[in-house]
Amino acid sequence: MSLTANFPHKTPADGFVQKYQKRAQEHQTMLCVGLDPDISKFPPSIGGRGGAIYAFCREIVDATADVVCAFKPQIAYFASERAEDQLEQLIDYIHQNYPDIPVILDAKRGDIGSTATHYAKEAFERYRADAVTVNPYMGFDSLEPYLSYSDKGVFILCRTSNPGGSDLQFLPIHQDPGLKLFEKVAELASNKWNTTGQVGLVVGAAFPAEIEKVRSIVGNDMPLLIPGIGAQG
Amino acid sequence: MSLTANFPHKTPADGFVQKYQKRAQEHQTMLCVGLDPDISKFPPSIGGRGGAIYAFCREIVDATADVVCAFKPQIAYFASERAEDQLEQLIDYIHQNYPDIPVILDAKRGDIGSTATHYAKEAFERYRADAVTVNPYMGFDSLEPYLSYSDKGVFILCRTSNPGGSDLQFLPIHQDPGLKLFEKVAELASNKWNTTGQVGLVVGAAFPAEIEKVRSIVGNDMPLLIPGIGAQG
Repeated sequence: MSLTANFPHKTPADGFVQKYQKRAQEHQTMLCVGLDPDISKFPPSIGGRGGAIYAFCREIVDATADVVCAFKPQIAYFASERAEDQLEQLIDYIHQNYPDIPVILDAKRGDIGSTATHYAKEAFERYRADAVTVNPYMGFDSLEPYLSYSDKGVFILCRTSNPGGSDLQFLPIHQDPGLKLFEKVAELASNKWNTTGQVGLVVGAAFPAEIEKVRSIVGNDMPLLIPGIGAQG
Repeated sequence: MSLTANFPHKTPADGFVQKYQKRAQEHQTMLCVGLDPDISKFPPSIGGRGGAIYAFCREIVDATADVVCAFKPQIAYFASERAEDQLEQLIDYIHQNYPDIPVILDAKRGDIGSTATHYAKEAFERYRADAVTVNPYMGFDSLEPYLSYSDKGVFILCRTSNPGGSDLQFLPIHQDPGLKLFEKVAELASNKWNTTGQVGLVVGAAFPAEIEKVRSIVGNDMPLLIPGIGAQG
């Protein structure tokens, strides 16, 4: 599960931002439930195919819909099982049955512009996600194709809580004394990349002081997706 | 198209490294042909579905097989068109007809270990690629699951030639005076992450001096995948 927060900019009235804000306000929740269906942990009686991944996730969706602000399916768990059709089916189920709950596709894509255009098409046209997670390593033009969908949200990886998260993210940047790489990403996202009000950041929950630091850099308006609240999956 | 180079470590005799080296030596080539089938550029008479993406790529494969060291399909161009089956079919075609030419799946994945395990399964078990491209932003444990396939190669993004490539990659690192982020990635890849001899780097061709710099950091043994030689697609 994750927590999310805020989205103040002017974006299409039927887009992710409005959908997200409305949901958060009306249900007083910022809880984002991850859908990471690891079939190796399924009971043997269920197995992984024949729609079982979809059925498993649908049960989580139905059980948690009352309290969530967003659902976040992780695409790797479907792709490794040749179950893209079940991911389509799952997102369609959420849109049909819980039209006011946005879907954030956790894909962490990152590639040059022409390829990113195809990843954006995958996330927003094929899967009809309301928002997607992306990787900042290749810079702004690798993010732009997602932003060209003005009704969608784009969460950029900033700080992650995994053991190797500090390998690059914690490197101090020479030209900005005191800033670490993840803080530089927050600064770029806030000052340069968020041209349309669609940008948010992924910030791990393991280091509350760092969440505060990111918040101090980006201000109170940029949404933060905070994985690591509760168990994944 | 891309260029690749070298792989000296001891890895399984039937694995990517040996396959790659043997191909390079026997055919005196380091040319890697990208398969980035953009159906918006297909002739209207062909269209994008009913196996057309596969057929298009198969023609490129047959036409270039004599001169290539590796093929590099880009997964986004298949995923955006719901054509994963055609990507499976394409890689299977290459393995069947050109068993001595390795396939590098260009996916640039990057996620925490448990999710990376599923991405590695996608690349190596589902698609049966010989190697995969990955993103370093989340650090070593996000790369380890790929390395656990001892017969496979792992190309880590280091320096990219796209306009935003310098946004992060060119940032100077304070604790290593003189090193930019992409050089730090090269250093980490060479000194810490390449525990098994399966690691290579992606280094864009636009800046030959930077290729030289990376080479000076990693030595002559680590393979470099150099996109940008000739047209993509």
